[in-house]
Amino acid sequence: MDQRGWVPATAGNISVRIAGGRIAITRSGGHKGFLDSFSVIEVDLDGAAVRPGDRPSAETLLHCQIYRAFADAGAVLHGHSVANTVLSMETDADALSFSGYEVQKIFAGQTTHAATLSMPVVDNDQDMARLAESVAPHLAHAVMGYLIRGHGIYMWGPDMETALARLEGAEFLLACALERRKR
Amino acid sequence: MDQRGWVPATAGNISVRIAGGRIAITRSGGHKGFLDSFSVIEVDLDGAAVRPGDRPSAETLLHCQIYRAFADAGAVLHGHSVANTVLSMETDADALSFSGYEVQKIFAGQTTHAATLSMPVVDNDQDMARLAESVAPHLAHAVMGYLIRGHGIYMWGPDMETALARLEGAEFLLACALERRKR
Amino acid sequence: MDQRGWVPATAGNISVRIAGGRIAITRSGGHKGFLDSFSVIEVDLDGAAVRPGDRPSAETLLHCQIYRAFADAGAVLHGHSVANTVLSMETDADALSFSGYEVQKIFAGQTTHAATLSMPVVDNDQDMARLAESVAPHLAHAVMGYLIRGHGIYMWGPDMETALARLEGAEFLLACALERRKR
Amino acid sequence: MDQRGWVPATAGNISVRIAGGRIAITRSGGHKGFLDSFSVIEVDLDGAAVRPGDRPSAETLLHCQIYRAFADAGAVLHGHSVANTVLSMETDADALSFSGYEVQKIFAGQTTHAATLSMPVVDNDQDMARLAESVAPHLAHAVMGYLIRGHGIYMWGPDMETALARLEGAEFLLACALERRKR
Repeated sequence: MDQRGWVPATAGNISVRIAGGRIAITRSGGHKGFLDSFSVIEVDLDGAAVRPGDRPSAETLLHCQIYRAFADAGAVLHGHSVANTVLSMETDADALSFSGYEVQKIFAGQTTHAATLSMPVVDNDQDMARLAESVAPHLAHAVMGYLIRGHGIYMWGPDMETALARLEGAEFLLACALERRKR
Repeated sequence: MDQRGWVPATAGNISVRIAGGRIAITRSGGHKGFLDSFSVIEVDLDGAAVRPGDRPSAETLLHCQIYRAFADAGAVLHGHSVANTVLSMETDADALSFSGYEVQKIFAGQTTHAATLSMPVVDNDQDMARLAESVAPHLAHAVMGYLIRGHGIYMWGPDMETALARLEGAEFLLACALERRKR
Repeated sequence: MDQRGWVPATAGNISVRIAGGRIAITRSGGHKGFLDSFSVIEVDLDGAAVRPGDRPSAETLLHCQIYRAFADAGAVLHGHSVANTVLSMETDADALSFSGYEVQKIFAGQTTHAATLSMPVVDNDQDMARLAESVAPHLAHAVMGYLIRGHGIYMWGPDMETALARLEGAEFLLACALERRKR
Repeated sequence: MDQRGWVPATAGNISVRIAGGRIAITRSGGHKGFLDSFSVIEVDLDGAAVRPGDRPSAETLLHCQIYRAFADAGAVLHGHSVANTVLSMETDADALSFSGYEVQKIFAGQTTHAATLSMPVVDNDQDMARLAESVAPHLAHAVMGYLIRGHGIYMWGPDMETALARLEGAEFLLACALERRKR
């Protein structure tokens, strides 16, 4: 994600579900291009730190929301690309849609480029509980993950490899959409 | 190809002709930036897996079509770039054309930038046999490879080194064409 | 910075505050992608070389201005990106403004995307003393660093890690702004 | 140059002046991102191969023209970027001009961003002797190197380090100019 420019500054968060119903997630405030073992903390499914003194980032709640909603979610990725930031801010709509791309088939259950897929866009909010409420109604259908306006993408999968492949697929489609705005 | 962003998610396929009239090709569904020996399977010229249990990707048929059509084809590359995806979707035409670029000379038989080269664009189709039929009439003249609309480029050469150089040349010309749309 | 293309040719400068009230700064004229120990010299807070014969770059004065203005500044980065160069040259205004981006929160004191942040733009000047005078009135409020028109960005922080994260955040916002000009 | 995408396919050429009035230059047809000792041949100042059987690329003559014209030229770089290709093809003019960029100061003799610098553009020609004739009248003033329309940039310097820094500076300015066309 760092090589692609998707975790600028200290933006973005990366998590995996681990044994004992816990989540390993990047610590608040670090740079995701320079991760070491200190950079990752353990939280429970409500986002509370397992080790006293560890401070989860506010967005940990959005990761936990996904793990609670999907028993088979094994990894969650949150990144800020130029494409996902610009496209979510340049529209007032509550979704971006994609059709005609073969890459759509990498998303769960998709078998043809001819389908029209929708990526929900919710408004940003510094109140994480309220933001999670905005996200909730979209989760069940968010086969391409979801965008927060000006605040990046959330993507998940059964394991990190799949979550990363889906993120790459979504960012590829977003990069195409950004180019197609220009003529 | 991964460093250039041409095999996002699990898109793209890479193959070489090996001994015994067989083809070594990337397995269905893996990420081409993380290849190891498990990631490659052997198929015959009809696209059937040599080892029982190996599952070739659907696009294996398009690779085999090229190996059957050209006895001197030693490697085939299929990738999805932003440029080839966007340009193929933004036109209804059945070809993109290129003229005035010195880089045109890297393609077989080309000796001058003053020629006009054509890159066929066929419509995408989830039926691979039917898609191969759409491609067939273009193969003999597809000196720059061919595009499937919204579904990437196919390029080949006598060996992997040449196929990759041709792919880079084609993607360079496509990137130039994408920029020239904007003013 | 070199990997991102922010120090082309011999442009850009990198410095840190070291013991004894001195500054370690990149030597004049070298390429910042090929740094070794010879590439860095020591200067005092007025920008004078500690070792006779070392020639500080003219821009050393702008680094020292920041270290003198902020006792807690520990590192200063100066880079030229395409985005910061183009945006500063395409406007006559004396600032760029940013609103609605979550990434704004990486800057000191920022707690919400809803704020409007301002990045001052001063005109370029080959007279460094005069250029420093133009910069001076903006420093106290330059939470996102500042731009010199056609001459890159200056960013700082308590340590190199923070300065680099802020630079990445600023360049991300500038890259977004550059894309949003096009439609 | 390969990392930046400036030598796609087998495009581009790299040379240095070596002892005995000879030039070491990349062999015809190889990829400049995979150079080894076989990839470089020796030629004399007229472009003739020193070792029988070595085949210089046609563009070797343009390198030699520079070494003959400038006794202090120690290295010559020729690359094809998207920016230099597109900008040279999108204009009918015989030069691109640059003003207001601090990076202009990296070119020989330049002391201010306020100067206006000119980068000559000559039409491409498959006849290298005729192409060299078109280039000749521009050489003395080509402080930023020169462009061949649709055929890349030529840049030189007293040594490889300086030639590469100048190339990066020129490509940075070209990338800025390409962005400024869009609004």
